Order: sequence, then structure tokens, then C-alpha cells
Amino acid sequence: MVPSIENCRFSTRLPSRKTFRPGAILIYDRRLEGISPSLRHFIRQFKNRYGVKAGESLKSLDHFPKHFSKISKIIGGVKKQEAQVIALGGGSVGDFAGFVASVYHRGVDFQQIPTTWLAAIDSAHGGKTALNSGEVKNQLGTFHFASKIYLVKTILKQQDQRLERQAFAEHIKHALLCRRPWAQIEIMGNSLEKSDLWAQLRESIEVKYSILKKDPKETKGIRSHLNLGHSMGHVFEVLLNLSHGEAVALGLIFALRFSQKKFGLSEKTCEQWCQLIVKTSAPRFKALQLRSQKELKLNQVKALLFKDKKESSRDGVGFVFLQAKGRPKKVNLNVQSLLSELKRQGFIR
Amino acid sequence: MVPSIENCRFSTRLPSRKTFRPGAILIYDRRLEGISPSLRHFIRQFKNRYGVKAGESLKSLDHFPKHFSKISKIIGGVKKQEAQVIALGGGSVGDFAGFVASVYHRGVDFQQIPTTWLAAIDSAHGGKTALNSGEVKNQLGTFHFASKIYLVKTILKQQDQRLERQAFAEHIKHALLCRRPWAQIEIMGNSLEKSDLWAQLRESIEVKYSILKKDPKETKGIRSHLNLGHSMGHVFEVLLNLSHGEAVALGLIFALRFSQKKFGLSEKTCEQWCQLIVKTSAPRFKALQLRSQKELKLNQVKALLFKDKKESSRDGVGFVFLQAKGRPKKVNLNVQSLLSELKRQGFIR
Repeated sequence: MVPSIENCRFSTRLPSRKTFRPGAILIYDRRLEGISPSLRHFIRQFKNRYGVKAGESLKSLDHFPKHFSKISKIIGGVKKQEAQVIALGGGSVGDFAGFVASVYHRGVDFQQIPTTWLAAIDSAHGGKTALNSGEVKNQLGTFHFASKIYLVKTILKQQDQRLERQAFAEHIKHALLCRRPWAQIEIMGNSLEKSDLWAQLRESIEVKYSILKKDPKETKGIRSHLNLGHSMGHVFEVLLNLSHGEAVALGLIFALRFSQKKFGLSEKTCEQWCQLIVKTSAPRFKALQLRSQKELKLNQVKALLFKDKKESSRDGVGFVFLQAKGRPKKVNLNVQSLLSELKRQGFIR
Repeated sequence: MVPSIENCRFSTRLPSRKTFRPGAILIYDRRLEGISPSLRHFIRQFKNRYGVKAGESLKSLDHFPKHFSKISKIIGGVKKQEAQVIALGGGSVGDFAGFVASVYHRGVDFQQIPTTWLAAIDSAHGGKTALNSGEVKNQLGTFHFASKIYLVKTILKQQDQRLERQAFAEHIKHALLCRRPWAQIEIMGNSLEKSDLWAQLRESIEVKYSILKKDPKETKGIRSHLNLGHSMGHVFEVLLNLSHGEAVALGLIFALRFSQKKFGLSEKTCEQWCQLIVKTSAPRFKALQLRSQKELKLNQVKALLFKDKKESSRDGVGFVFLQAKGRPKKVNLNVQSLLSELKRQGFIR
């Protein structure tokens, strides 16, 4: 399965049951049944269905044998060629259901109906499935791309504003990785209320696909450009206990300012985008920066940047810079230069 | 990773520790430590090693989280690009270790050192990894080909004669799937004592690779030719409680005689090969055939041929015939014609 925007279906309403195979199993976020009659109706059309509690605990390897055994019984005698797994939910449901699809009879067809903006703009397209082993997130998984991704306006629009906000940072990341200017991003900068993620969704995920196509399994050093803002974002997310969106927003600001210093990203571009990020995705930026000065401990930052200290001195950590809009560059850095930059930018004292 | 005979290394002794990456983990059959000093020495050279009890219980999904967590701790901070999983053991160890390698950080390098003839001639090359869920064998797994397969004469030769016998049936299957005649097979037919599986190993697995190359993930209906003798062999294995080798031997005889009747396989070819199979792999053939008349129950045979009865009427079961040596043909059959043929050949009354 080659990742391609051609596999995405944009529509106002949920697809018909007939779109899917007769023996398809729907793995869905149980909360959705209570959210709207249309979702409940859609779910109940599947004789083979498996409701889950979304979130990180769903991805625990310890619970997987129990889930898998139940799912196997539901799928029952459906042959490999006729089997199909459909994920209806956010990122954790997609990661879990994708893993099931990738290992059931050594891999069956997989389709996604993301119900959160974050999944719709990012995780549903990436083909990364994952489970957690003990405390380690995404310690095991596979690459297994969805053959179809249904992007449904009415479903995505019924999320509250806060969740739409969380996806803005990933959206802006896509804009930064794209050379072409986007008119809609200008509007976002001028009026947050008028910004409409749905109208920009195709343009945004096209950037992701243009990168995925070149390096679907992250073997050529190209796919990692999608990590822009994420290596430090991950540190902020864990140590400051932020939402993924807010953490990536801070991570992007860090990466842009570091890029200005180290790779001559123009001051104008840097400041213009940082302002947009603060406005749309990190309105608490100043407060968080002050908090980070108290809460970011050097050792913890180090430990998060390198899963293992033995590796740190030898290899450094891969960090994605932006030389100009649409021109990312991955560089191996030693930990000290990242810590110095965190100081220079006022995140740690 | 494209499956290729070029990835096989034939040698007299075990490879040097330096052949593998510094951070490689060896997953090995614990019993091997007691078998020979050279094996014990080889195993102890790996700082990262994980001994397992070989057999079907190793492949239980229920035990997998515990195994995986321990293995993850042993691998520790080794980066994905530097990680490597090496399997030392028979089929179950290879299936298990291959699955670990395929899901650890979404897939790391995998190498095999098969220590049984069955693994050396068959499973180590096929790229099929597998775990069992509940009672269902190989219910989940992945395709993940070993990048190197080490075939070590001294290790394989120290198995007892009975285990070498078990591999003869798979070896003869390869000969049947190959148009070219093999001189060594003639010798086997004339004198079992002089037959030397090591001398024929490359020729035998070349047949497997020629098929794997064309259809590595079993999507084109070519790879399934390797199932010659196996659909009924599996029935015999379970219901008559036979070893895999003996069961496949009976399955091959069934397939050859059925092929003679249905696809004009010449009587001479059929009988010549059936005699060879009886002599090398199923000396108890007559006794087993008589036993099967008492023990094979129609319903159990049906249930094993179709995992689900709902599917049976619609689809039938794929059965591999041999039109002539080297000319397999897969046909969808209904269950009744298989049962009639079992009767005609005297396996059931």
C-alpha cells in the first residue's frame, strides 16, 4: 500500500455501510455512541463491532492478548482476503486498530475514519501503528497504511473548539514544510474565529503525503522532517504536562528561533510564524515559558532527549531545522548545544 | 528485504560473534546450551541474550507481553538502526523471534541460525512470523524476512536421525515442485543410509526461494504452491497426532494420487514418488492408513479443512495439485470432493 492523498475521501456525512466489506469489523471509541444519533446509527450497522475505551491504556501491550482474542472471535470465519478492520476514533483507536489489522493473519485491509482533528490532520495518514510496553510509549508497532481514510466534515466539526486548537500546531507545521504560501493561513493569523480547519484540511495533509511518498517507512531520513517541532515538543509535553498541540506549538517556536540562529532562517519569517503559532496554538506562551524556567530540570531533559545515555555521547540526537519555509534540514546535535539553546531562548535558567 | 538464496550462508562452523552487530540480541532455545560446548560458547558471547523454552507455548500471545518487556529491557538503549535480533533454534524460536524483530520499533534487522533440519530446509527462509491466540495456531503474525540465514553443518548434523527424517518430506516436496531432476534424490531412493540432507540443502531451498521471489507475501496465488501436501497433511497431523514430517508425507501421497486421478499426473511418476516418500518419510504408511480408517471422523476433517463452516459452501478450500513434476496447480475444491477422495484412497471408510 503506497500512501497517497488519492486514498482520502472528503465528505459531509459518514460513508454508507455498503462502502465496506460484509465481514468488516468496526473498532470504535465507545464514547462516540453517546455523541450523536448519526454516529450511533453508523456503529450499529456493523454486526462485527468492538467498542473500546480510547486513550493510552488501550495501547497497553499487557491488555492486547485479551482484546485480540475477543476481536478474533468476532471476526470468526471471515477469510483473510475478505477481512477488513475499520477504525472509528482518534489517534489511540487508530494506532490500536491499525496494529490489529497489521498482524491479524499477517495483515488485512485497514481503513480509518478519524473523529478528532489531530487524527484527521496527522496520525490517520501516517501508517504507523503502535502499542506501549510498560511505561515505554510506542515501543512496538508496525507500518500498515490505511487503504482508505474517510474525512467527514460533520463528525470533525462537532468537536469542541479546544480540540480544534490542538490540531493547529500540526497544521502550521505542514505549512512550514511547504514552499507554496497558503492564503488560508493568512486568514488564520488575522482572525482566529474565521479560521476553518476543514477548508484547509486537504492542502495540509497533501504536505504530509508528499513526504510520506518519498520515505514511507522512515528509512531515508526524509520522513523525519515531519518531526519538526517534535523532539523538543515531546520534552515539553512530558515535563510541563501540556496537551500535544500546545507542546508542539512550543517545540515549533523553539525550532524556528534555533533555525534563525544556526541556519539563517530570516528574522521576518521566524517572527511572523512564531506570532501565528502563539496566537493560534499557544496563547499561554509567556506564562509557560516562565513556568518552564522553574520546572525543566537538566537531567530530565537529557533523559527524554536520549532514551539511553550510553548512546548520547556517540550519536547525538536528530533535530529538524528549517533553513527557509519548505526547506527542512535534519542535523545530529549533541545534547549540550540543545541545552544551551534552551537557556538562550529563556526556557531554562 | 527481498527473499533470496544470496542471503544464505553455508558453513561448517558457527559464525563469529563479530559477524553480528555489537548490540544484537540472541534469542535462543535454552536446551542448546547443554548440547555442545561450541553452542554454549557461541551463546555466551552475546551480552544481550534471551533463552526460551522452545515449542508451541513460546508462541502463545498470552505470554508475549512478559517476554517482550524482558527483551526490551535487555536491548535497552540500542537504537533502531543498530538493533538486531538473531534466532538460534528451531521453527518455534524462529517464529517468535521473527515476530519480536518485526514489531520492535516497527521492525529491526533479523537473522536466523536454524538448529533443526525442518527450520533449515523450510521455516527459516519463509519470512513468516507467528504467534498463537488461544487455541488458534498462527492467528497473528507478520511477514519479516531474515536478512541472513546461517546454515551450519556441524549444528544440523548433531541432531538425531529421527529429526533428519522429519525434514525429508519437505525436501521431497521441493523436489516435486522443481522441473529439474535431482541426482541426490535417486540416491535417497536407493539407500536411505547414504542419503545426506546437507549435500542437498542448497538445491532444496533454491526451489523455495524461486517461489518466494515471485510472491513473497502470498498475494498472487504462487506462494501457496508451497502448500503441496499440507492441507490434508495438517488434517493428518492433528487428527492422527503425527509428527509434522510424517503428516506431510501422508499429505503428499494423498495429493499425488489425487493429481493422478484428476489432472493426469502419470502413474509412473506418481508411484515412483509415493514409494520414495513411504521409504524415506512414512515407513508406517500402511499401518497409519489403517488407523486413519478408524480415527478420521468426517466432521472433524471438515472442521479442520475450513476454519468456519459458513465459508465452506461458498468458497471451498484451496488445494494444490501436481500436473507433472514441477507443475503445481491450485484449485478451489468443495469439501465433498475431498472427502470422497479420502474414501477412494482408503483413508476413511
